[in-house]
Formats: sequence, C-alpha cells, structure tokens
Amino acid sequence: MRVAPRAQRRMEQWRWPSRYDDDDRPTDGQPYWFPYRETMPPVEREAAILERVRDVMRWCWERAPFYRRKWSEAGVSPETIRTLEDFERVPVVTKEELRSTQAEHPPFGDYLCVDEAEVVHVHGTSGTTGRPTAFGISRDDWRVIANEHARVLWAMGVRPSDTVFIASFFSLYMGSWGVLIGAERLGARVFPFGAGVPGQTRRAVMWCREIRPTAFYSTPSYALHLSEVAEDMGVDPREFGLRRLIFSGEPGASIPSIRGKIERLYGAEVFDSGSMAEISPWMNLAESAARAGMLVWQDMVYTEVCDPRTLRRVPYGAEGTPVYTTLHRRSQPMVRLLSNDLTRWEAGPSACGRTYPILPRGIYGRIDDMFTIRGENVYPSAIDDVVMALPGYGGEHRIVISRQEAMDELVVRIEYDDATRVAGEASIDALRRRAETELRTVLGVGAKIALVPPGTLERTEFKARRVVDDRDLWREARAT
Amino acid sequence: MRVAPRAQRRMEQWRWPSRYDDDDRPTDGQPYWFPYRETMPPVEREAAILERVRDVMRWCWERAPFYRRKWSEAGVSPETIRTLEDFERVPVVTKEELRSTQAEHPPFGDYLCVDEAEVVHVHGTSGTTGRPTAFGISRDDWRVIANEHARVLWAMGVRPSDTVFIASFFSLYMGSWGVLIGAERLGARVFPFGAGVPGQTRRAVMWCREIRPTAFYSTPSYALHLSEVAEDMGVDPREFGLRRLIFSGEPGASIPSIRGKIERLYGAEVFDSGSMAEISPWMNLAESAARAGMLVWQDMVYTEVCDPRTLRRVPYGAEGTPVYTTLHRRSQPMVRLLSNDLTRWEAGPSACGRTYPILPRGIYGRIDDMFTIRGENVYPSAIDDVVMALPGYGGEHRIVISRQEAMDELVVRIEYDDATRVAGEASIDALRRRAETELRTVLGVGAKIALVPPGTLERTEFKARRVVDDRDLWREARAT
Repeated sequence: MRVAPRAQRRMEQWRWPSRYDDDDRPTDGQPYWFPYRETMPPVEREAAILERVRDVMRWCWERAPFYRRKWSEAGVSPETIRTLEDFERVPVVTKEELRSTQAEHPPFGDYLCVDEAEVVHVHGTSGTTGRPTAFGISRDDWRVIANEHARVLWAMGVRPSDTVFIASFFSLYMGSWGVLIGAERLGARVFPFGAGVPGQTRRAVMWCREIRPTAFYSTPSYALHLSEVAEDMGVDPREFGLRRLIFSGEPGASIPSIRGKIERLYGAEVFDSGSMAEISPWMNLAESAARAGMLVWQDMVYTEVCDPRTLRRVPYGAEGTPVYTTLHRRSQPMVRLLSNDLTRWEAGPSACGRTYPILPRGIYGRIDDMFTIRGENVYPSAIDDVVMALPGYGGEHRIVISRQEAMDELVVRIEYDDATRVAGEASIDALRRRAETELRTVLGVGAKIALVPPGTLERTEFKARRVVDDRDLWREARAT
Repeated sequence: MRVAPRAQRRMEQWRWPSRYDDDDRPTDGQPYWFPYRETMPPVEREAAILERVRDVMRWCWERAPFYRRKWSEAGVSPETIRTLEDFERVPVVTKEELRSTQAEHPPFGDYLCVDEAEVVHVHGTSGTTGRPTAFGISRDDWRVIANEHARVLWAMGVRPSDTVFIASFFSLYMGSWGVLIGAERLGARVFPFGAGVPGQTRRAVMWCREIRPTAFYSTPSYALHLSEVAEDMGVDPREFGLRRLIFSGEPGASIPSIRGKIERLYGAEVFDSGSMAEISPWMNLAESAARAGMLVWQDMVYTEVCDPRTLRRVPYGAEGTPVYTTLHRRSQPMVRLLSNDLTRWEAGPSACGRTYPILPRGIYGRIDDMFTIRGENVYPSAIDDVVMALPGYGGEHRIVISRQEAMDELVVRIEYDDATRVAGEASIDALRRRAETELRTVLGVGAKIALVPPGTLERTEFKARRVVDDRDLWREARAT
C-alpha cells in the first residue's frame, strides 16, 4: 500500500460538507477506490466518524426542528457527544416518526435540512402502511450517492469496461437509481432496462443475449424468474456471459442454497448488498470481491448493530438490529434510524483487506412482523387495515406468502360475512375485486384474494399469527 | 435583444465536436436559452447548418463503413455537398437498414462512429418488427442530449422552480430519459415516477396530490387514463396544481379536441413534442410557450420535410415526411433518417420570436402502415409474422385498434384452423394463450386475442386492409 502520509491524514476526500471529486477514479488494477480510507485501522476510522457524527448532528440541530425537538427531550445535543458510546444514547428514529412528521410538514417533513428549493430529485417508499415517505434529495447529495455507490461497485470488481444491466423497476424505489448513477459515475456502460411491465422479462432475455452485459442488478427472486423465462424460450442464461449478479431487496443472495442455485444457473458470481430506502447509498452494506459476507462501509453510513431492547451496540459476534447514521447526506440526514432488520456482525478485516465490520450471513430476518415480497416491504398491519374496512368482511383473515415458480406470491384469505353469503356470487365477486384493487394500491404488489365462508378461519388474538410465510427462501433464512 | 456581436458570431456554444457548458443557464426571466441562435435570420442559420452537415458527414465518412458504403454507391461524399440542395441528394437511411446493419455488426451496427468502449448508455427500440435497434450513446452525446432537451423545456416555460413529474416507462424508450436528463440539466426538480406496472396509476394520483408537481410528462393517452383513475378515486386532477402537460409518442396533443379535453381536465397548458427514437434529442420538434404548432429546432437536428417520392424538400406550406440529420451526435449520427411520418411545415418565425420552421398541426399521420399504440410503434407486418406462424392459424386475421376508456386497445382477430376446431375448447384456449404471449413479446404491448372459426374472415390480398384503426384520436387526426 503506497499511500502518502498526507493523503492518509485527510482520508481521501473526507470533508464536511461532503463533496467528492467527480472526475477522480482509480486505475483498473487498483482494488480500492480510496486505498487508505478502506484499509485504515478501525480505531482511527472511528475517531474520524465520531467527529463527523458531531458535524452531522450540528447540521441537523441547526436546521431540523424534528431532531432538535427529539434530542432536547432526550437531553442530548451535538455537544454532549464525546464518544461513540455517548452517541448510543441518541434516541433512534423510527419509520413511523418519519411518516408522521411528513404528514404534519408535507411533503418532506421537518427533518429536511436544506432549503426546499434545493431538492432536485423526489423519490419515496411505496407507502405500504398507507402514507408513503417522500425522499427529497439535493443536487449535492445526489452526487454523493453516485460516488459512494461507485466505490461499492468498484469493490465488487466492476470496472469501466463492464456493462451493467439493471433489471429492477425505475420509479420511487432508490435501488435502481442508486446502481444506475453509481455505475455511471464509475464509468461503466449502463443498460437501464427496468422491470415490472407485463412481458418485459422475455424482452430482457432477448436483450441480454444481444448486448451480453457483464454485470446484472435485480432482486434474487427476479433473477430466478428470468432464468425460468429464458429456459422457457430455449435460452441458457449462461449464454448472457454475465460475470457478476448484484442483488438487494431480499435475503436470498446471502442464503447459501439460493446463492448457489443462481450462481449455477448463470455461471456467474453473486454479490449481496442493501440497507434501507431511507438510507442512500443503500449499498452501504455490500459484499466485496472477497465475497465472505457484506462489509459495513462505516465511513459512508455509520452502522451500529444494536440490542433491540437497549438500542446500544452489541459486541462483535453477537446478533442485533442495524441502526444507521448517514455521514454525507445533507438534505434528509438520518441519525440513528432503526431498521428492525436482524443480523450478526463480526470485526474486520475482510479477506479483501478492508477493515470494515462484516455481516457473514447478511440480513436474515426482522425483529418486527414486516415481510418483503418482490422487493416491496409489506406490513401485515397495512393489510389488516384494508381488509378489516371492507364492506362484507366477515371478521377474520389470513396472510399467506408462498412462492410460485420462483416469484413470491401473496395470498390473503378473507372470510365474508353472512349478508354477503346470502346475497350470493355477485356480491362475493364484488368483494374480491374491491379487496384486490385496494390492496394493490396500498401495497404496491398484487395479492391473490381467496374468499371463504363465514366461520371458516380460527380466531386469533395476535396479528402476527395471521401471517404464514411459506417461502423456502425464508424457511432457509430462519434455519441457516 | 441585447446580444454582443461576438456572441452572435459564434452562435452561443456552436462548435464541433459539440460540447455545451454544463453550468450555463439563462436567468429565469429570459425567454431564450440561446437568444441569438434561436432568433437569428434563417438564412444565416442555414449557412451554419450547411457547414455542420459537412462536419458530421466527414465524421461519418471517416468512421462508419455504413455511411461510406451507402454514399459511395450514390456518388456523394462530404466534399460534394456545397449547398443544402446538394444535401438532398444524400440517400435517406431507413429503419430497416439500421436493423440489418446491426444484425450484421452487432450490437450497434457499423454506423457507430466512436470506439465501442466509449458507449456508456444502451437504450433501444422495442423491436416491434422482430429485431430491435440498439442505441449506443457516448458520454459526450448523453450530455448533449441533456443540454438540448433542457433548451426545449426552457422554451416551453419550464424553470428551475418547477417540479417535473415523469409518468412514462423508464426502460428502452428514450422519451422518459430525455425529459429526465433535460429537466435535471435545466435545474428543475424531477420526480421520475415511471409507468406501466399494474396499480401504478392510482399511486401516481396519490403522489401528484401530495407533491403537487407543476409539470407533467407522459403520452396523451396516459394523461386521459390518469384523469379517469383520479375521478374514480374521487380526486379532481385540477387538485394536482399542474401548469404544463408535455406530451409525445402520439398525435393527440396537436389535435384540438383531445388537447382541449386534457387542458380542461387538468386546468393546465398542453405542449406537444417528438420526433423519433433514433434521434435524440427526440424533442427536436416541440411547442414553445407560444403554443402555435411544434417548432423545428433546426440547429439541433436539421429537418427536411420531403416529398415521399423524390425525398427532396417540399416548399413551406406543403405536406411531406420529415427526414432528420443530427447535428451534435457523435456515437450514432443519423444523416437523413427517413421518418415515414406525415406533416405540413410553415416558415417561421413563431409568435415566441424563434425563427425556426413550424409544424402547425404537429405530426398527424404516416406514409406507411405503422401505427402507434400506447407509445409503442407497431408494424402490422410484425403482427402478421407472429400470427401466421402460430400452429393452428386458420389463414386469415384482422388487426383492430380501438379505444377503451381512454387507453388504446389492440385486438387481433384470428381464425383457427379445422384441426383446432375439431380438437375443441382446450386447443382453442392454448392457441389464444400462445398468441397473447408471443405478440406481447414482439410488440411490447398486450393485444386482446379474439379467435374465430375457420372461414369467418374475408380474404384479403393487401396487408394494410387487415388493419382497422378505430380510435377517435386517429379518426380526428385524419379529419382535421
């Protein structure tokens, strides 16, 4: 590692407010985008992170009533944080809080820390629990997101000579856009194909065979689906010539059996990545070329794996829920955002030489009852809200998640009431159609509705008992 | 017009190879992005275009075997072009030629004029006639496209304070991407929402009401569909607060009755724009704030409205088919690309002061039998190819285009054969499913299949007779 001491000291473009040199890029043979920052002793990195956390907190304190109110109530402020242990006393932010502050201060909430006129990109969540969360991103943040995704893709081995085929939906979801602008920033060729429109998968097969991309981004489910469609068309996915498949949105890519299956089908290496929609770069957890678990890129998003009760860090080797703090975002900074995901972390370094902590099995569960289906986060409570408000609802229902031919399927079994039973087939059909339409609007994914006569389903006191997740993916995730 | 003579002379960033200053932008009150270039005497502009046409031809001559071969056979070369009348002798390029040269020299054809490694963005046509055309775009061209779309949006009155909601599909189609990067370059806020996924329109209504965009981009059909979905949800589209609706992909926006209907529904102004997927910026034909027909932005894409037989320009006031020459693209320059569209042009200036020619009624027809449905170009021959190859095909079919609740609908009526009739319902169903799947793959839009018994349809010798376009949109377009 030939790095000048001076470059070490300034940690390669480490500054606040963050701004990366948009023309800078390592030579192809260089494994690290920022050689020192990625391999530095963790204790030194943590010292820099502590300073940065205070910068970010000051930024929020001065600009965001949301944070100032929250922190004042908890008796913390940027000035009371002298160690990373002190930082663990900063109260976590929940997704529900973001939604409710946005409802009160539409559209971006009172945690927007730039002038609203500076917001140049609007994205958002799918609004699975009724009100979606809007992301307002400034021009500077958009460039930061591009630069950080480029670094992560570089660590996976993506180079300017690669062609990256993006087979995920371009809309609210930041995943597709992050990979796009990251790959553009890296200098790779991008093919933003998208997904989700009927018939598009067959066309994806045609184009992959024609353009022969070297890297591919989607959800693991979609890659499995694409391989089945290809086989149906008489095409072996190995013909695409892919070398890397990059995934997020589901736990599949870190589950050995799923990962192995995809690697065999495509003859390519699988890389897992992710974090949360509210956090961008959402690839702040991502495998490197060493492929031995996701790295926790602490100098982008400071991540604490926490005890779900105390919300303080657990030691390396233990299990907990990630809590995220963005270190470079200015428009809607997240300070201790609670993920409710479940993981186990280990101390670095990784075999690739990076000194970040490692998540050997990726993200493998939830500490609440949310589930992910075809890349969308779904809360059973959102389904409950819709179903229970249906005229003709008979008082009980079940949510069943299964897998049909590689694609997740969501089935909602609903009892209709006696009046509907008496009114006959037309009324039952009307109830089914209404349930389908309303659930699709709220969830962003289609659900199959199975109507059953009054009294069919056993009554339950517990919401979670209404959910049956029958996918091998999740069974294996729980069992691994 | 206070423009320095020197700025006039160099026509504001007019250079070859083209490169625009990415930080430059007029002040909000300024109606023109490039005051002189847009209002200069047409004869001076044409002199500059002639020089540029020769630059572009030299670029192609030296780099593209496709063009050198084609031009050599026709006895023309960059050096033989001394006037714009000379240029009319340059043979036109057809879409079929592009497809066949791409088949021979995959994936970008031997008209790619940059090193293949310089291609950083891949897009393409939907491949309605079997093999799609791939667009390979260099980084420099991508920036040119952004800058030129920004200029056109500026002329419509879009400003950095606007929020542009993009409600068209992000995939191969350049329309969505052109508006996106143009609006980004202009400094506006963008909300790249996309379209095409089941249930997405209801979510578009929710988000429009929440974010209150000021400008909206889609096809006219989709805007009509969105308004119906909004009404179904009890939302008046006027609540969105839109000021401008920008359309392309269909003739609707230039047809007075459709335009008036959309303007009344949204309480906003409609702007028509377009050209061809192979030409980017595809908004080189576009209305300005004067809204008196589409301007022909000749300094971006030199457009000749030609007699379809002689392929030489018709005089202003006459009808013909546009032939396009890109003046700034280097990766896949188009020199005299034949559109097969139908329009009438008039001499400028427009009421906005721009001295470009004007298309008072926009693009209102085709000189071949192609039709456009939900933004996709469809050739009847592509449908014929699929349908005639179906096992069980009874020897005749009809293509009916109609409009159901604001969305175009494509119905293909197919006779099945005697063997299928004898085999019964299951065989007929299998034929229907196969026809649906294969047509969707080839066309990119779904078709309804209506199977009819052998001998039902009258036999025809002429392909075009198989097509019945029953949409008011097109009836009115023909009648206006």
